[in-house]
Amino acid sequence: MPKDAVASPTPPPVEGWHAFASRRRDPATKREAVLKIAAELFLEKSYARTSMNDVAERLNITKPALYHYFHNKEEILLECYRLGCGMIDEILNDIAAHCGTGLEKVEAFIYSYANVMTINFGRCVMRLDEGDLSSDAFSEIRAYKRKIDRRLRSFIQEGIADGSITSCDPKIAAFSIAGALNWICIWYEPEGPLPAEEIAKQFARTLTQGLANRRRRNGARSNSN
Amino acid sequence: MPKDAVASPTPPPVEGWHAFASRRRDPATKREAVLKIAAELFLEKSYARTSMNDVAERLNITKPALYHYFHNKEEILLECYRLGCGMIDEILNDIAAHCGTGLEKVEAFIYSYANVMTINFGRCVMRLDEGDLSSDAFSEIRAYKRKIDRRLRSFIQEGIADGSITSCDPKIAAFSIAGALNWICIWYEPEGPLPAEEIAKQFARTLTQGLANRRRRNGARSNSN
Repeated sequence: MPKDAVASPTPPPVEGWHAFASRRRDPATKREAVLKIAAELFLEKSYARTSMNDVAERLNITKPALYHYFHNKEEILLECYRLGCGMIDEILNDIAAHCGTGLEKVEAFIYSYANVMTINFGRCVMRLDEGDLSSDAFSEIRAYKRKIDRRLRSFIQEGIADGSITSCDPKIAAFSIAGALNWICIWYEPEGPLPAEEIAKQFARTLTQGLANRRRRNGARSNSN
Repeated sequence: MPKDAVASPTPPPVEGWHAFASRRRDPATKREAVLKIAAELFLEKSYARTSMNDVAERLNITKPALYHYFHNKEEILLECYRLGCGMIDEILNDIAAHCGTGLEKVEAFIYSYANVMTINFGRCVMRLDEGDLSSDAFSEIRAYKRKIDRRLRSFIQEGIADGSITSCDPKIAAFSIAGALNWICIWYEPEGPLPAEEIAKQFARTLTQGLANRRRRNGARSNSN
């Protein structure tokens, strides 16, 4: 029974290796290289099928060298999650600080988040199963995800209050948008034919249109649609 | 390090057990009971953390009794996938046979598929990682999923052709809808406050609105929105 049905037969050129090949590189760079390669492997082969050995092998380093940076696979997984969540957090803060109506905030969120879902650390956040983490780490990641969800929901509530978003259940609306976005990390292929920019644009348009308060917009003639 | 952070401390009442307690029940019923319990466990604890022992234990049967129905955990996983995919297939055939415009087909698809995503076998299809299947089974499930995607995409293309859907990239639109829907299996809680019917209705409304060709609809005055 072939065990690596999902793995590509020939690994892609390994950027991370250079971080270890040069003695001048600092530990933070090497740590980041481990995370990049691990995220790549988790997405390619699944977390369960990726061993510390696989990570070391693809980085062309020894296992003790790898264990110098991370004690085990779960520690790597948690760090991948944290990096991805950090990117989303930055987006949320930016939007809350700079955007106008609730609908505009939702639109900006969809656009930026769609882009994060095409980056490996972002893909890890939503594609890997946090059930594989131990209790504390699991709670930490669940709390991050709840925070993202609450912020998106608050943008929608803001839109309903300011009249830019039609009357709806903000919880279901947030889940619908988050789902469309999170799914990107499942189907998106970095080398595929659909550019991330195109995806982000169409998502922002169609998902926002489904929420827009048309009565108000049509009345105000603020849009030529 | 507690290993079962996600598992509920006290298992819910086991319906499947009755199938095994009565000698009169036929093998098909018992097989189905195994699948129901396994799907429940895969969703609760993750596939990797569920053992054949767990399945036998929750069913209150011996391991040899379980192995009489399935040779291994992967066989059970594959069967769960097949049951969920079969439900979706039925929906697709129904819609293709009975619905009108492309937009109406998309709407009917969203509504019915949302409902399947609240049923455990449906949740398994989209929530579990088919990377855990061996090569042939993996290909089978991927083919099923590709078929679902192609059908949804064809409904969208039909809608663009008949003027009910606005000009867009049908591939990206299909991924956006499928994502919103598939994500239900991640966040939906059978005992939670949001009824499946409510979710299906709002999804059908907002996701369809985002695609609707407004110029045509406004011109025809066929909708009071």
